[in-house]
Amino acid sequence: MIFQKQLRLPAMHRGFHLITDYVLRELPELAQVRAGLLHVFIQHTSASLCLNENADPTVRHDFEQFFNRAAPENAPYFRHTSEGPDDMPAHLKAAVLGSSISIPVMHGRLALGTWQGIYLGEHREHGGRRALMLTLMGE
Amino acid sequence: MIFQKQLRLPAMHRGFHLITDYVLRELPELAQVRAGLLHVFIQHTSASLCLNENADPTVRHDFEQFFNRAAPENAPYFRHTSEGPDDMPAHLKAAVLGSSISIPVMHGRLALGTWQGIYLGEHREHGGRRALMLTLMGE
Amino acid sequence: MIFQKQLRLPAMHRGFHLITDYVLRELPELAQVRAGLLHVFIQHTSASLCLNENADPTVRHDFEQFFNRAAPENAPYFRHTSEGPDDMPAHLKAAVLGSSISIPVMHGRLALGTWQGIYLGEHREHGGRRALMLTLMGE
Repeated sequence: MIFQKQLRLPAMHRGFHLITDYVLRELPELAQVRAGLLHVFIQHTSASLCLNENADPTVRHDFEQFFNRAAPENAPYFRHTSEGPDDMPAHLKAAVLGSSISIPVMHGRLALGTWQGIYLGEHREHGGRRALMLTLMGE
Repeated sequence: MIFQKQLRLPAMHRGFHLITDYVLRELPELAQVRAGLLHVFIQHTSASLCLNENADPTVRHDFEQFFNRAAPENAPYFRHTSEGPDDMPAHLKAAVLGSSISIPVMHGRLALGTWQGIYLGEHREHGGRRALMLTLMGE
Repeated sequence: MIFQKQLRLPAMHRGFHLITDYVLRELPELAQVRAGLLHVFIQHTSASLCLNENADPTVRHDFEQFFNRAAPENAPYFRHTSEGPDDMPAHLKAAVLGSSISIPVMHGRLALGTWQGIYLGEHREHGGRRALMLTLMGE
């Protein structure tokens, strides 16, 4: 059984956002899957998906601060500068963090650990509404 | 055909560990898969999974040294500090390295390259026993 | 339906390369998949796969410059030095960027965003011909 659906998130400000509930809300079909995988894919090159701590919002704050230092704006060797200072760092962050996550599905639920949630990394100042593609495979 | 199983690793010290054999030992079912994928997922936010060099242990040493410098403890801008100095760097390393790996399965075996092995990145001093979820899909 | 195929890329120089067309050329079977996933896996530990901007080649230039600074050669604490100065940084870049990508397949096509393409990160000076394993699952 394969189920596929596109999801458009609301526009979010630059930073890391917990989006687990947005994904679950679109997937009532999850309840019918005894065993399988959920693949969540972002159709953009300046935003990312990863899994991390779902409880304390200071973790998301520290992520934003860390990645801004790891991939700083206006590096003197950047040549891809025409789309603004936040663009090239956004591409780098997206590559490091990744464009998709895969989560096991077991007995109708995501088999996440207690503290795991899905993060959207919005790496542009004005990224707009991001499109996700959800693919649920299982039986 | 979908096969799913939880695996609890023994507690490992902080650093990178080759765990290919732990995974294979739990999967006699692999022999029956002609073509498919194995998904290995870690249900934690302060440990990671990746693939890398399976022969020389100095690679794992150098990984630990590199990532300790890339995500240092006690960064002055960290706000998530209540769980110890190794906690926030552990979350960052887990996001950069990733929570899951997917490996092709062919003719009953993992289609890894000659030098590829599965690494557990244990990013906490006392991470305890880590839970992995194995999902094998194929025919 | 599962389809699997190995693909050997031509040798490429150190840097980031857009390889979407190499992958698509090997997969006429894609046209028959209504819904599914394509998994692309690299069987090496010193080269990587990721998705990023498919239009402006300066993005690939800036990637190479960025990752050379993030994982520099000849770090004083490296112990794995016997395979040349580009080897240990190549392992680190491969772990950070990843060994595989998964892309949704919809109505016979990769459901990539407008600006997304598949990057090979060739992190060795003389990496030679890299082997990819393509796994297409769907219906």
